[in-house]
Amino acid sequence: MDISKRQRNPAQPSAEAYLIASRRCELMNLQYFLQMGKLIQSISNLVHGLQRERGASTIFLGSDGEKFGPERNAMVAESTCLYTVFERALAEIHEELTTHPVGSHLLAHLASAFHGLGSLSALRTQVNARSLSVSDATESYSMLIHRLIAVVFEAAETAVDPSLARLLVAMVHLMNGKEFCGQERATGSAGFSGGRFDIALSQRMTHLVEAQERCFEVFLGFADEHSCGLLRSLRAHQREKEIERLRQLGCSVGRYKALDPALSDHWFALISERMDELKKVEESVEGSFHGRCAERFAEARNSLAHHEALIASLDQPANSALPLLVLCEPGRNGETQSGEAWSSDGIGQRFGRSIFDLVQEQSRRLQQMSEDLQSAKEALEDRKTQEKAVLLLMSHRKIDNDEAHRVLRKLAMDQGKKLPEVARALVSMADVLK
Amino acid sequence: MDISKRQRNPAQPSAEAYLIASRRCELMNLQYFLQMGKLIQSISNLVHGLQRERGASTIFLGSDGEKFGPERNAMVAESTCLYTVFERALAEIHEELTTHPVGSHLLAHLASAFHGLGSLSALRTQVNARSLSVSDATESYSMLIHRLIAVVFEAAETAVDPSLARLLVAMVHLMNGKEFCGQERATGSAGFSGGRFDIALSQRMTHLVEAQERCFEVFLGFADEHSCGLLRSLRAHQREKEIERLRQLGCSVGRYKALDPALSDHWFALISERMDELKKVEESVEGSFHGRCAERFAEARNSLAHHEALIASLDQPANSALPLLVLCEPGRNGETQSGEAWSSDGIGQRFGRSIFDLVQEQSRRLQQMSEDLQSAKEALEDRKTQEKAVLLLMSHRKIDNDEAHRVLRKLAMDQGKKLPEVARALVSMADVLK
Repeated sequence: MDISKRQRNPAQPSAEAYLIASRRCELMNLQYFLQMGKLIQSISNLVHGLQRERGASTIFLGSDGEKFGPERNAMVAESTCLYTVFERALAEIHEELTTHPVGSHLLAHLASAFHGLGSLSALRTQVNARSLSVSDATESYSMLIHRLIAVVFEAAETAVDPSLARLLVAMVHLMNGKEFCGQERATGSAGFSGGRFDIALSQRMTHLVEAQERCFEVFLGFADEHSCGLLRSLRAHQREKEIERLRQLGCSVGRYKALDPALSDHWFALISERMDELKKVEESVEGSFHGRCAERFAEARNSLAHHEALIASLDQPANSALPLLVLCEPGRNGETQSGEAWSSDGIGQRFGRSIFDLVQEQSRRLQQMSEDLQSAKEALEDRKTQEKAVLLLMSHRKIDNDEAHRVLRKLAMDQGKKLPEVARALVSMADVLK
Repeated sequence: MDISKRQRNPAQPSAEAYLIASRRCELMNLQYFLQMGKLIQSISNLVHGLQRERGASTIFLGSDGEKFGPERNAMVAESTCLYTVFERALAEIHEELTTHPVGSHLLAHLASAFHGLGSLSALRTQVNARSLSVSDATESYSMLIHRLIAVVFEAAETAVDPSLARLLVAMVHLMNGKEFCGQERATGSAGFSGGRFDIALSQRMTHLVEAQERCFEVFLGFADEHSCGLLRSLRAHQREKEIERLRQLGCSVGRYKALDPALSDHWFALISERMDELKKVEESVEGSFHGRCAERFAEARNSLAHHEALIASLDQPANSALPLLVLCEPGRNGETQSGEAWSSDGIGQRFGRSIFDLVQEQSRRLQQMSEDLQSAKEALEDRKTQEKAVLLLMSHRKIDNDEAHRVLRKLAMDQGKKLPEVARALVSMADVLK
């Protein structure tokens, strides 16, 4: 069955034709998400590659080119391969993406991501030449990664099937959490290699730890059981205790007490391992997503075939279910009109009821799906609202991103409310605050 | 420019290509809504025809075939023509509807509407034969009208452009309000022709009056200035006072005091006139919608052409903005790599910034559109939540639709809250109430 084949315009529209069209449309959407899954997987891989490249580049820059030179080059080569895979996945879904009538947001995010990718070679050259600071290099890579994750976020927003939407919400939160972890690695490296954490660095660490934990909490609320289990094992791992110890050490050491710079390598290795493990959780979600897509696609295809067969079998009593609008000419006796055949035709009635059941079932099912979609949509909405609240605080109080997050968290704590709630209240006051 | 032409898969994806694709996608969407406008107009006309047919049919049945026989036949003929126009509008948008990846809901509603339209001829035959009651006939027509309006509601939900979404929200509330008015006509006719309003009839009148006023309030919050003006003039018209007088008369007369049955014709004529006037307001909104669509389409097309020209003119410095991922081979000196050309190339940098500005502008614009869309989406959401709350109350307390509406209104009044708020609270308690 070729579902991409556009349906012929039926001679006369009917409940059956639109019922089939509605089912076919669901199938098309699932096929789209099967391909989207591949694109997301390629983005997840590319992001991981860039995170590794960023880590190596910061060490390379921080050590004045002494450390991680060859490793970094290997990682650059790796990212380049991953970029090619990403391009290929995009090419496969290109037609669907560019003809999707509500796809302009996703395409704009892709434009933005490609703009970032376009300056990657320049960034690498600067790192090679050691002509930019560690923090500028980190910042540039982070911006690029942020834009790639934004594409996945946008894809999650367009999901219609609730089970798929939930997995995408899990995925995007996991990717965000892992990226916070990557930034924590950079922040920690800066502190340990410099021999101390100043207030800004410790506060940044605290913020990044909290931010990633919040992402993982949302993840646990939406991911499949297996992936949740993987994240829980990761959190229970030996390594986490050591990471916690280093975090404490970094943040609690006084201003003048120097840290052993050798801790830097230890820290970097530990967090890198953690990120590789997080990547495995991502892969598990990707696997679930693909499996669920394939399952839903098979279900939808069978269901469509079943409906088509059912309707064909019911199609015996000719066209009695097609809308017959009878012109009642004045003066003509109603009893003799053709429309009457319908009500006295037992088969027609039975047929009418069957089609009615199918139509009702489809409406109820779609309604239920919309309702089930709600919580996934809310999680995405919460995330957007929080980002907006942070931007608002930054511009209004002239503070930086970390500080804005802190203010928001403090507000929530003081008011005994949840973060999204406080963020919403703040955003709703935006006009007044201006 | 042929926007329906699918874009060729570019050799290498780039920020420019996706920026253009994003703009093109917006244009496609606007073209879709230009056609959708015609479909909505044809639905609005068909609904008006069916409302007139329903009115005539109830009088015909109520007078044992004495009154409105020829008028009714003329109206049936008229509806039949309107149905043909509706079919034609559907045929024009058929391909877009059936290939829209998130169109399954709209298609399911169309299936449901066609199922209703399929039994119209049987209904007419029964009216001709006077073999069903006035209330059964009213009920059948109302169900059909309800399903047609649901198609418009679903179309409103898929709007992405905020100005268009707002007009569709206005439209759907006006259609709903007018339909409540049509039901009020039937209820009033039943009371006046029967010589009295029992408690059920008066309560139903009250409910329908309140429900239509609430719809009109939402309408005034979303419609264009001209259409709002038309509705205000309609409300200030002489006729409204007379309608109010009859409403009072109907609802305040005691159980045993009979009303003059001649009032029935007077009432019917007045409300029919009112509905014809409401239809004119609908036509004004349709006009605004079409105008706005055409305007936005022209804007988007110009903007796309402008972007394409700008990008072409910037395309001189060759491929410098295309993502150049340079493989850094270990041991090779970074300074000599091709990526370096970028950072030292003034033109390339200028070019990079320009594309960046365009990409940023597109993201900001889409972001702003999403935010502006919010209030329109909320109005639709509120409407759905209220319908859900009513269904919940009906099933939970075993009461009818009118009574459920009354309970909901009383709750809102007692708590000093708005109706949507109470409805939301109720729906959120659904699981507890089960």
